[in-house]
Amino acid sequence: MSKHTLTVRNFRRRDVLKNAVVAGIGTMLNGSAFGLAIGTDEYPTIRKAAENGRDASIKRIQDWIALPSIAAENLNMPEGAEYMANLAREAGFETVSIVPTDGHPGVYATMDNGAARTLAIYFMYDVKQFDSSEWSSPPLEGRIVDRPGFGRAIMGRGAVNQKGPEATLLAGLHAMQNAGIKPPVNLVLVAEGEEEIGSPHFQQIVGRSDIKATLKRSEGIFIPIGWQEINGNVGVNLGAKGIVELELVASGENWGRGPKKDIHSSLKAMVDSPAWRLVQALQTLVTPDGNSPAIDGWFENVRPLTAREKELIASVAANTDEATRKKLLGVEHWIDDLPYLAALERLASQPTVNIEGLVSGYTGPGGKTILPGEAVAKLDLRLVPNQTRAEAEAKLRAHLDKRGFEDVAMIVGGGYDPTETPEDSRIIQSELETYRRAGVKATLNPRLAGSWPGAMFTAPPLSLPAGQFGLGHGSGAHAPDEYFVVESSNPNVAGIVDAAMGYVDFFYQVARLD
Amino acid sequence: MSKHTLTVRNFRRRDVLKNAVVAGIGTMLNGSAFGLAIGTDEYPTIRKAAENGRDASIKRIQDWIALPSIAAENLNMPEGAEYMANLAREAGFETVSIVPTDGHPGVYATMDNGAARTLAIYFMYDVKQFDSSEWSSPPLEGRIVDRPGFGRAIMGRGAVNQKGPEATLLAGLHAMQNAGIKPPVNLVLVAEGEEEIGSPHFQQIVGRSDIKATLKRSEGIFIPIGWQEINGNVGVNLGAKGIVELELVASGENWGRGPKKDIHSSLKAMVDSPAWRLVQALQTLVTPDGNSPAIDGWFENVRPLTAREKELIASVAANTDEATRKKLLGVEHWIDDLPYLAALERLASQPTVNIEGLVSGYTGPGGKTILPGEAVAKLDLRLVPNQTRAEAEAKLRAHLDKRGFEDVAMIVGGGYDPTETPEDSRIIQSELETYRRAGVKATLNPRLAGSWPGAMFTAPPLSLPAGQFGLGHGSGAHAPDEYFVVESSNPNVAGIVDAAMGYVDFFYQVARLD
Repeated sequence: MSKHTLTVRNFRRRDVLKNAVVAGIGTMLNGSAFGLAIGTDEYPTIRKAAENGRDASIKRIQDWIALPSIAAENLNMPEGAEYMANLAREAGFETVSIVPTDGHPGVYATMDNGAARTLAIYFMYDVKQFDSSEWSSPPLEGRIVDRPGFGRAIMGRGAVNQKGPEATLLAGLHAMQNAGIKPPVNLVLVAEGEEEIGSPHFQQIVGRSDIKATLKRSEGIFIPIGWQEINGNVGVNLGAKGIVELELVASGENWGRGPKKDIHSSLKAMVDSPAWRLVQALQTLVTPDGNSPAIDGWFENVRPLTAREKELIASVAANTDEATRKKLLGVEHWIDDLPYLAALERLASQPTVNIEGLVSGYTGPGGKTILPGEAVAKLDLRLVPNQTRAEAEAKLRAHLDKRGFEDVAMIVGGGYDPTETPEDSRIIQSELETYRRAGVKATLNPRLAGSWPGAMFTAPPLSLPAGQFGLGHGSGAHAPDEYFVVESSNPNVAGIVDAAMGYVDFFYQVARLD
Repeated sequence: MSKHTLTVRNFRRRDVLKNAVVAGIGTMLNGSAFGLAIGTDEYPTIRKAAENGRDASIKRIQDWIALPSIAAENLNMPEGAEYMANLAREAGFETVSIVPTDGHPGVYATMDNGAARTLAIYFMYDVKQFDSSEWSSPPLEGRIVDRPGFGRAIMGRGAVNQKGPEATLLAGLHAMQNAGIKPPVNLVLVAEGEEEIGSPHFQQIVGRSDIKATLKRSEGIFIPIGWQEINGNVGVNLGAKGIVELELVASGENWGRGPKKDIHSSLKAMVDSPAWRLVQALQTLVTPDGNSPAIDGWFENVRPLTAREKELIASVAANTDEATRKKLLGVEHWIDDLPYLAALERLASQPTVNIEGLVSGYTGPGGKTILPGEAVAKLDLRLVPNQTRAEAEAKLRAHLDKRGFEDVAMIVGGGYDPTETPEDSRIIQSELETYRRAGVKATLNPRLAGSWPGAMFTAPPLSLPAGQFGLGHGSGAHAPDEYFVVESSNPNVAGIVDAAMGYVDFFYQVARLD
């Protein structure tokens, strides 16, 4: 049997309910269902500490949500780094320091547990922008709300992306600390505050010689996640797409044609329009259906899916529910009315040119008769192996220039290369083993369609395995009403205590596995 | 000699300065330079009253600016109509009433002066939206600022478009009232509050049977303006382009493809994008340079310029300074690097498809990795004779439908047909005569490239001549730092007292001319 489907047993056991900490809240994993391979006497002690710390763990997430660090808005960045450093200190990291960069600072922390192996952890302390008017509860309040089918959740910006899962990992460390039990691996934590703007200075953190040396000694690095589906399933990604986030700006100022500022729209009959110029430049970037990049040479280095990758995607298709996914996304048809399997292959294999936003001239209600002096398209370009960010930027610029759009400015906000991690790496195998032991069906994905700066780790000079791991569930990353479940009413999905114990067991698996 | 250039004499006379009301402020017109053709003994009395009322006239503009009525934002609409009605009452209109419509109300007022002829006046009491952060003084304060080359001006939203000129006409009426002299024509005033959204309900005002009957008895209708250039010149327009203001909206909701709300941008690889759909629909609407409409059949009814119109445009080109105009607009090149004359012919003769605004997805600083569920383009379509608004709307819809963009919604905010008024009409000839008597060079333009709802008057059933008239100067309509000069330091440009007297003389010319 291939390794990619690892449903070992169903943990939907009636008797687990009696272990629920809060009446009416089911707990997914009990002592017997979630055995530790080593030190079996340690498990109940740590779990008891995790349960005792439950309220504090929830409050830790809420307090963190109340301090949003948003790099794009230069909001609470030094404060966010200090806060992150304190969170690490409180969780038992011994050496904790702020790492200055040319942008916003990062945090570096280590915990030497005298273990043979070292595991590295990646945190982001920044969150995505939000518009309070779009939320059903204040995005910084972290209000506890009901999420039907899942249980009670913290609603707030950063709840799932990424403060909730990160704080849940910290909850696991607090539990071990309170139980007087050292983690079975040494830990090293690197955190940045610019993930949401494409990690423009993260290389300055992981590339610092002392940090780099420590990271290179690790088994690999992972980011905590909370991606369990409603049936408990979770994906294990062997990589992620790269990304370039950028703005294309057409302006009278740069163009030397059209107005330098907004002028009365009647003048369109004799004055060129930067907004039309942007539209004309944009439409060359994709096929007429808007679905495939049409930038010169874009596919030169795109590696087709391997047979193994196709096999993994077929398994994902077989083990996820298409109708549910469409409903959750509010989507009736995939591109070209593709069947689910083909859509998933497209998701994994195809680079994209996406419009995140368009801004020009008057954007309020109704109209305003102006000819705008500037027009901006916010784009993200998702990259697949073996594309690189540098290649993408150069090709887009050359494509525009070749068509006479030299004046259309390309302002790159950030980005990173695609990332890949070997299926047989200890970190991936430990993830799979932990999920197996928790009775969670883990599905191997060849590639996350989203992006994370994994290439900072997987590419030289670090060349580390890198992955995502976590139990629990949240949703709404980058959207209103983002949430993270803390009290699960779904026997398939972990609440905060079980998810914290998941990280504890993951540490043991990394220490244990050959 | 053709009638279109009417520089009779230069009024830059040293002796006019002694008439300046405020030290250091030049006055353009004195008693002898601005003679009234009839009742020569009336002129000094009215002028004295206008000078005495100067401070009150300035305050009247400022107070009006402090109450912005913005139909697009449903701001102060009933209040604005009441305010307008009171302004009319105070200026001597005898019957003044609010005119309800299916939208925002208008105002109808009459002043029977027992005269043989009736002159109709069009007012708008609404103003364009504004963003205070873009202004150098608060847009509702009406602060008095220096405008080098022109003098002291009121800065505020509506200063020139159209409260300043309108209140200056009222100042002329106040002066006559205070001088105890009745205007030599009967007056009828129609005002609306939806000009800036395309006058969607104005037909309900001018079409009301009693109002229509009164208007039809008039010589014609005009809107007060303040368009003197720095050299004092002013344009007299024989018509104006029509306009359709609308939004094109691509959405997952309408399309049945793509997301119904914003989703994570990584999904672009398997989900269609409404933003790209909008871009693709938009780019079919214009030529690749963005400068000419490419909508099917758009030019079918476009009437080429007549020989007389070309003659008039040549005169405009000869009598305006291209370099100054380019500098004021912040434009280095006209479309296709056309020479000035050709650019002006294009301005008068060509319909346009202009992007007023683009809005989709994330519009704040930096980026946000979403695939937006909706994208909006705000367009205005300027129309020339013999296009009509109804034709334009139908052709745009058909053009989109033919290309498969049936789902791209077309939300029309308002608009009106092009308008034309005969050069030999009494209202146009009275305008020219008044300018001549004031020593102002008036240049006949075949067509204003902007739009006003003149077709409501010039088309059946009213079929009235309609024009713009006024002395004075302001600028910044629809833009930040809009202003209107009240104390002129430029001997070629009228301050508020001279401009008020200009309206008085215009009334006399309408009464007098054969």
